[in-house]
Amino acid sequence: MIDLFLIGIGTGNPDHLTLQAIKALNGADLILIPRKGADKADLAELRREICAGVIANPNTRFAEFDLPKRDAANPDYREGVEQWHDAIAQVWADTIAKHPKAQRVALLVWGDPSLYDSTLRIADRLSPAPQITVIPGITSMQALTAAHAIPVNEIGAPFVVTTGRKLREDGWPKGINTLVIMLDGECSFAQIDPTGVHIWWAAYVGMPNQITISGPLHAATPQITTRRAEARAEHGWIMDIYLLRR
Amino acid sequence: MIDLFLIGIGTGNPDHLTLQAIKALNGADLILIPRKGADKADLAELRREICAGVIANPNTRFAEFDLPKRDAANPDYREGVEQWHDAIAQVWADTIAKHPKAQRVALLVWGDPSLYDSTLRIADRLSPAPQITVIPGITSMQALTAAHAIPVNEIGAPFVVTTGRKLREDGWPKGINTLVIMLDGECSFAQIDPTGVHIWWAAYVGMPNQITISGPLHAATPQITTRRAEARAEHGWIMDIYLLRR
Repeated sequence: MIDLFLIGIGTGNPDHLTLQAIKALNGADLILIPRKGADKADLAELRREICAGVIANPNTRFAEFDLPKRDAANPDYREGVEQWHDAIAQVWADTIAKHPKAQRVALLVWGDPSLYDSTLRIADRLSPAPQITVIPGITSMQALTAAHAIPVNEIGAPFVVTTGRKLREDGWPKGINTLVIMLDGECSFAQIDPTGVHIWWAAYVGMPNQITISGPLHAATPQITTRRAEARAEHGWIMDIYLLRR
Repeated sequence: MIDLFLIGIGTGNPDHLTLQAIKALNGADLILIPRKGADKADLAELRREICAGVIANPNTRFAEFDLPKRDAANPDYREGVEQWHDAIAQVWADTIAKHPKAQRVALLVWGDPSLYDSTLRIADRLSPAPQITVIPGITSMQALTAAHAIPVNEIGAPFVVTTGRKLREDGWPKGINTLVIMLDGECSFAQIDPTGVHIWWAAYVGMPNQITISGPLHAATPQITTRRAEARAEHGWIMDIYLLRR
């Protein structure tokens, strides 16, 4: 049975690494690094840099593998995701099998393995089941609120973390004043009633090219959509996140 | 104008510290350490240990101060909290004033300054206003999900973060399957309908004395309440957190 370490590494700032993550990386025999072909958002080079910056163990081996593509043509979204996760688990297993001496295997996870991330679900597909250790990491949600120096919640009040798709489909959840929106490729904030809503938005949170915009939603929307399109064109990819409060 | 660094330090495991936090601690002229008298939950000794473990700057000064007590007799809870925060800000200001050469002042915050924490709100009361920098830290929510090796969300689904009080007063939020409950001193999970609900509970998350219990809510409830009472009696304090999913 292998020991599998799912290591949260934060949002792209190498200084987001915790001491726990650094120790786990240095304890690994094998580190798996996914590549997405020409997709710049795979940030494979940044993963390599993060590892190079903190790994002092000369015995650590790296294995890069090509990440399978999700079949976006599958009309059943959930089924498409399930098949994709099966395929990734198979590539992990094949890659690990090429290193039969590797007992401690690590994967670097952007943000935290618990939050809108598939790594745990993919790991659950491995057979025989590995011993899984999760190392928490700084999430984009935390990098967002840190960048704006704001609390995520009002005093003693609840908040919802959700996706752009859910915001568009289900609207603003009842009885909740604060929403954190993740995985939104479609500027869903522009599709809700902006009355009385304030937005704190950021892209590339924690990275040198971080962009932050905040303000009343009606005023900030055109500013964000313009800046977002420019940044996406410039970098070839974008990851953004925002908090809405009314 | 002083530079005020609010530094998330995680949940009591010194290895939760990020490199960013360590740099900020080493860059500080003055670090404020609160004491709560005989209250063991102030963990002042653990703060000192965390600092001693990573601060290499011989010029860093420490200033301990007695944290004012909240007037629990005030029938207006919000007003009581506001007055308490005013009093804390005054003690910070007085403590900083005793170190007129300190330009970079740091406060260590359990978890992350954005999540159910008052530090940002207290800092906003300082006059003149400081330049505030927030350093995110591992939260108890992340330490909980890491301890159980579970994702916080179902695939693409929302979740609510709330308090024990809100769960008791408002019930289970509509349209949401996953709740993370914080600040619950009263085992509120025992007061809801357990049908079809699974709980992942932990106390002292990230610390050596961490306790985890999970299972169907109806079966886990007596186990958790008993273990919680024992642990509280043993340590003199307890901090716990849990995730509910149906």
